[in-house]
Amino acid sequence: MTIDQAIQQSAMLQKKIHALRHASGLIFYDGATTAPEGAAAGRGETLGVLGSMEYELLINPETEKLLHFLQENKGELSPQQARETEILTREYEKISKIPQDEFVAFQVLINEAQDVWHKAKRNNDYPSFAPYIEKISTALRKFAAYFNPDEKPYNVWLDQYERGLNMDKLDSFFGKLKEAIVPLIKKIQDKGSIIDDSFLNQEFPVDKQRILSDYLMEVMCIDRRYCAIGETEHPFTINFNNKDVRITTKYHTDKMTNSMYSVIHEGGHALYELHTGDELQFTCLAGGISMGIHESQSRLFENFIGRSKPFISMIYPKLLELFPEQLKNISPHQFYLAVNKSVPSLIRIEADELTYCLHIMVRYEIEKMLLEGSVDVDKLPEVWAGLMKDYLGVDVPDDTHGVLQDSHWSGGSMGYFPSYAIGTAYAAQILHRMKQDINVEDIIESGNLKPIVDWLTENIYKYGSLMDPDELLYKCCNEPFDPTYYIDYLVGKFSAIYDL
Amino acid sequence: MTIDQAIQQSAMLQKKIHALRHASGLIFYDGATTAPEGAAAGRGETLGVLGSMEYELLINPETEKLLHFLQENKGELSPQQARETEILTREYEKISKIPQDEFVAFQVLINEAQDVWHKAKRNNDYPSFAPYIEKISTALRKFAAYFNPDEKPYNVWLDQYERGLNMDKLDSFFGKLKEAIVPLIKKIQDKGSIIDDSFLNQEFPVDKQRILSDYLMEVMCIDRRYCAIGETEHPFTINFNNKDVRITTKYHTDKMTNSMYSVIHEGGHALYELHTGDELQFTCLAGGISMGIHESQSRLFENFIGRSKPFISMIYPKLLELFPEQLKNISPHQFYLAVNKSVPSLIRIEADELTYCLHIMVRYEIEKMLLEGSVDVDKLPEVWAGLMKDYLGVDVPDDTHGVLQDSHWSGGSMGYFPSYAIGTAYAAQILHRMKQDINVEDIIESGNLKPIVDWLTENIYKYGSLMDPDELLYKCCNEPFDPTYYIDYLVGKFSAIYDL
Repeated sequence: MTIDQAIQQSAMLQKKIHALRHASGLIFYDGATTAPEGAAAGRGETLGVLGSMEYELLINPETEKLLHFLQENKGELSPQQARETEILTREYEKISKIPQDEFVAFQVLINEAQDVWHKAKRNNDYPSFAPYIEKISTALRKFAAYFNPDEKPYNVWLDQYERGLNMDKLDSFFGKLKEAIVPLIKKIQDKGSIIDDSFLNQEFPVDKQRILSDYLMEVMCIDRRYCAIGETEHPFTINFNNKDVRITTKYHTDKMTNSMYSVIHEGGHALYELHTGDELQFTCLAGGISMGIHESQSRLFENFIGRSKPFISMIYPKLLELFPEQLKNISPHQFYLAVNKSVPSLIRIEADELTYCLHIMVRYEIEKMLLEGSVDVDKLPEVWAGLMKDYLGVDVPDDTHGVLQDSHWSGGSMGYFPSYAIGTAYAAQILHRMKQDINVEDIIESGNLKPIVDWLTENIYKYGSLMDPDELLYKCCNEPFDPTYYIDYLVGKFSAIYDL
Repeated sequence: MTIDQAIQQSAMLQKKIHALRHASGLIFYDGATTAPEGAAAGRGETLGVLGSMEYELLINPETEKLLHFLQENKGELSPQQARETEILTREYEKISKIPQDEFVAFQVLINEAQDVWHKAKRNNDYPSFAPYIEKISTALRKFAAYFNPDEKPYNVWLDQYERGLNMDKLDSFFGKLKEAIVPLIKKIQDKGSIIDDSFLNQEFPVDKQRILSDYLMEVMCIDRRYCAIGETEHPFTINFNNKDVRITTKYHTDKMTNSMYSVIHEGGHALYELHTGDELQFTCLAGGISMGIHESQSRLFENFIGRSKPFISMIYPKLLELFPEQLKNISPHQFYLAVNKSVPSLIRIEADELTYCLHIMVRYEIEKMLLEGSVDVDKLPEVWAGLMKDYLGVDVPDDTHGVLQDSHWSGGSMGYFPSYAIGTAYAAQILHRMKQDINVEDIIESGNLKPIVDWLTENIYKYGSLMDPDELLYKCCNEPFDPTYYIDYLVGKFSAIYDL
């Protein structure tokens, strides 16, 4: 094999893997948007076959030989080719370490678990789901030992979702965060209810909300030639390449801001994907590098920009035009306060900006226990309720609104939640850095966010998966991750809002 | 290899091919319905890779060995397994006979040709497209010689689209048809315009037309759990399995019957796919056997049922309810006459039931010449205009409304058109046979077509691709194909309508 042949073979392998993922991704997206309800079984059949074809493409002696050859001849590769080889090798080593029968058994387990979880959540029936939590955490411990027998299982999984992340870093991060925001939340609660957001609970017609979605995407400079918007039960973003990204939202007639902020959030994910480099397309480096960095982009737009004063004052004329009756006596400042009202609550995805991270901490504490094997899964509802009371001061009425609320564990993901919080803290640090280059507030007020998108393209988006998250953040900010920016932001913003 | 291993390997091969086709089909469907407009290039990339993966799955020494082994041990296979082997072997033999570089070159040629054709049609610029017709017909002659060097090229291609079909059969079929309907059309023209269909050219709101689509699908007993309807430029049906079929339509506010009859037509295709046997799913036998048989089902519903008196009288109350203003002075009989008005016209897809087959004959005559190499492609517009004048008596004003109107040739299909006509004639014969078992008119008037769907399931649908078209038709009708039923139907129906 010559080096040119190997490079060509690697490119073809990546194109095939990309094509299978494009296909699987579209089948999933179609299932959530357009497919008839009875199509699930046939979709599952095809997804299973495409998944095993992907496995077979990657895990075989020929690919192993190819990757060895490319690594031995690293010196002759371009930086991009070297990085492709590195990422492919990581995937190869990860997946090939799991015996195929265990890999397949885990897919079957997860398929079942998701079904059981859906029913359990609907029926507030935690006991039916508990055995699956047990089996899933046992399998994840076992896989972690295959990946890296010298490391604690939870650290192995944290690193899978956010390379470089571990419990030491998270304990320190969450410790500082808790120290700063728990007293802040207490002060807000002591102050009593000073923000009226009841006007948000009127009827907002869906056709007008759809116009608002288009307007928000326009403000965010999302190129609609390459980004469609659909409607699903839970909003999400999916990308096939940098010229084909889909976001979704859900419209509630009685809560317009749910969809408004989900569009801005998913729009942030979309901007990242739409601006990854052309030269990375159809390789394993196309697309955002990690969940944490991705979340930094969605939450940067959703909260740091979308819930800022200049953003509200800029879009308010459009809101008034669309909803003149609903907002007739409401000032931009009242709207700003309403979308920033902080009230500890039970459900993570409905949490406000300030209390959101406490929800993540609850899951973090429980995941640590599960992957240490130090908790009896039958006791999880109690543990959950205890932590929610400790961190947020709320009483959990039932498991549907408690331990059963999220889908992640049933999907086999443990170690994924913390990146929601880390990503938000990345966003604060990135924004701080951005403000040294451009006048962010003026840009937002102008109603055309292009200079912000351009800055992010130059410093984050265009790199796709060329760098690991910590490297990318360092390159962007000229310093390592520092949660101070996030803490300062939260304390500053909410002290001002609540006049503390 | 044991026979059990071979059977398993064959089943897995078919599942993989099915999964790749499901994926490619959905990517195509999404492109026509939901995808952002700029997504075409990335979609093309993935479709190319999936296509080559399908080629590699089928054409390789291992598959060749497997198919040989299965054929040698045919005695140990179930009838279904034997048929699967037969169909796979046919495909293997067909594709493997074309040298891979010529196969790829043809895909590239077609890709280009389709693009050139789109522009040529838009700009009425036949000369830009002529070289592609030349290259495509040359390639198709060459491929035909690979498939079967002892047969005339056009016969080889006719057989590819409708197994068992050839020019002798078609010459006889079209000859009889022409003999019967050309004088009929003449008589109708001599009689002058006695049918007023001007009321169809009013404004029919799209939201009401959507309700009508749902109603039509309900009447046809299409199970909506397994069949979604979308909107596209050109209506089509696509199926992924018998629990996931999609039909599309296009709504014109000024011509409600266009969408109405496209929904009934595509609904006929959908019913076929929805009722193929469960045991055939994820094998190469899932789905309808041929274009001709498929068209027999769509046109059976569209014309023989949907344009019949009992159908119009049954749905008329719904039409009046949806369009009270537009139809207020119109009787069911006037509506019946309007949707059956026969006027020779330029555009095939807008042709009425009586003149439709003459359009097919024009293409048939030209395809014969092209695959014999007996026509100068630069002269095709003249040849076209001459045949249109001969057969339909119309003058062709330009190539956009003439030789450039259809997409088939640019897509590399020659030999496909005749199955539209043959399929319609199959439908007449199938309907004649059905009427011996059930009272079709009474069933239609009842507004619930289930007994018709059940009869078709039992006699056509459930068999999927288990039998070749001529066998299936024989089994259903107890006699070979006979165009008399179709000719009698047309003469009877239109003589009555025009009181000849």
